[in-house]
Amino acid sequence: MAEFELIEKFFKNNGGRADVILGIGDDCAVVQVPPQHQLAITTDTLISGVHFPVDTSPYDIGYKSLAVNLSDLAAMGATPAWVTLALTLPEADENWLIEFCRGFFTLAKQFGMELIGGDLTRGPLSITVQAQGFLPEGKALRRCGAKAGDLIFVTNTLGDAGFALREKILEDRLNRPEPRVRVGEKLLGIASAAIDISDGLAADLGHILKSSHMGATIIVDHLPLSAALKKSVSADKAISFALNSGDDYELCFTVSPENENLISQISHDTNVSITCIGKITSQKTFTLQFENGKTYDGKITGYQHF
Amino acid sequence: MAEFELIEKFFKNNGGRADVILGIGDDCAVVQVPPQHQLAITTDTLISGVHFPVDTSPYDIGYKSLAVNLSDLAAMGATPAWVTLALTLPEADENWLIEFCRGFFTLAKQFGMELIGGDLTRGPLSITVQAQGFLPEGKALRRCGAKAGDLIFVTNTLGDAGFALREKILEDRLNRPEPRVRVGEKLLGIASAAIDISDGLAADLGHILKSSHMGATIIVDHLPLSAALKKSVSADKAISFALNSGDDYELCFTVSPENENLISQISHDTNVSITCIGKITSQKTFTLQFENGKTYDGKITGYQHF
Repeated sequence: MAEFELIEKFFKNNGGRADVILGIGDDCAVVQVPPQHQLAITTDTLISGVHFPVDTSPYDIGYKSLAVNLSDLAAMGATPAWVTLALTLPEADENWLIEFCRGFFTLAKQFGMELIGGDLTRGPLSITVQAQGFLPEGKALRRCGAKAGDLIFVTNTLGDAGFALREKILEDRLNRPEPRVRVGEKLLGIASAAIDISDGLAADLGHILKSSHMGATIIVDHLPLSAALKKSVSADKAISFALNSGDDYELCFTVSPENENLISQISHDTNVSITCIGKITSQKTFTLQFENGKTYDGKITGYQHF
Repeated sequence: MAEFELIEKFFKNNGGRADVILGIGDDCAVVQVPPQHQLAITTDTLISGVHFPVDTSPYDIGYKSLAVNLSDLAAMGATPAWVTLALTLPEADENWLIEFCRGFFTLAKQFGMELIGGDLTRGPLSITVQAQGFLPEGKALRRCGAKAGDLIFVTNTLGDAGFALREKILEDRLNRPEPRVRVGEKLLGIASAAIDISDGLAADLGHILKSSHMGATIIVDHLPLSAALKKSVSADKAISFALNSGDDYELCFTVSPENENLISQISHDTNVSITCIGKITSQKTFTLQFENGKTYDGKITGYQHF
């Protein structure tokens, strides 16, 4: 089947958004950003054997390739709108494509997104997704706004995806992360800084601290851990997973103390647990300690892309 | 060198456009589309050994990966603005990156574009570029607007890139196509349909005909051929290259007869030769003939992506 037929069969007519003036099928897509809004743009590539195990199902590959991009939109507080897909496949395997599309479009539909374009090429399996979302002018949640005394929060639980990668259990946490889009949207005007946790909490919170020229104190026994993780490994090991392992795609954000009371309402409205794990400090150090004041002396790492 | 250091060293701070609210370095870029404008979005992947010969220089890979996307913007009449780059490399080779960036940014600068984001991953060499440009509301040059009696034009000469691919001469035509952005912009409100020639004139004009529900008559001895191509191969062979070989990245567009006189002015203003090669017909056939009325009976093909 030729590229055009494959596109016609699998990718066209998936949306129907009124702001898509011209979707798949011309040289470019043409879209319209609503008045008083800016556009958030993000792109992520997933390579077989690097960003997902080679035996990952095509459904999960389709799902995850969009999810990691949605997670970036969530970290800015943006509302998802459009997506493009550059898909490189060793061969035009229709069964593979059916499953890939099922995963991809399940998530796209959930967030009202429309696939507006892409490219289908032959080569080693690789997926590059670019997602676009709307932000009210000047309201983006950036990494650089954390202030001394701000509280540090994370959504849901940490470490499960990293554990799944090594132990081949809890695999939904690895393969089907839930992008925290609705939390991100509600944090506009409330959070002072935000990031999504793709490389591990320590590494990603590190980006906020570096951009904000701040330090932090983290209470390691406040790190939210799933019952499954706690049951499977020692307390020390669980903390290490939560701090250092990637692929969680939860949000980490900072909030000034006067906004603290708004967070439980957001948690309630979005049905996502949100936990305070520490505080931003003006002293530019990254301090990890237990609630009882004892220093945590475990190793801190972050995912290295090269 | 880690991903972040590579990005810092090679890709950050390349632009300075006022409409880039937030460039490289956060979870998303944030950009602002000007009032009364829509956004044209296109993406293309280049794979080593598929879209360029494996011995192509990194400079030319950088140049071409942006050029093919600019060519899509040109085909819509859009004015280039922003670009993202998803680059997958087998290893972080700094010399390779220096040359790649030289090619990429030479072209980006020429069209005033800013690199606003991307992803750098390890894997088999693959480059996915996404380019964004502005269009006055409702003015996009689409494939579907050709009408019976419209004249068919192409820019510059055809067939050189395809010849270069086989014969290893004229390689600048293959590796450094000149995106016809300035021609495209001037065709807004003048051309009835447009496409860029990436898969060969016959295949790409075919897309206009299919979208517009029209046919065409092409006068094959009016096809613009370079002196170098004419010198190197027989007249028949040269016509075949012009009709069937890809990678030219010239524009093919249709214009109603009353706008014909505007085309020579556009050619003069942009310093790009523009040639009338035939006419749109209401009869849905694709007729190829010589000026003397004799039918052209050479083979017609188009690039197959799978």
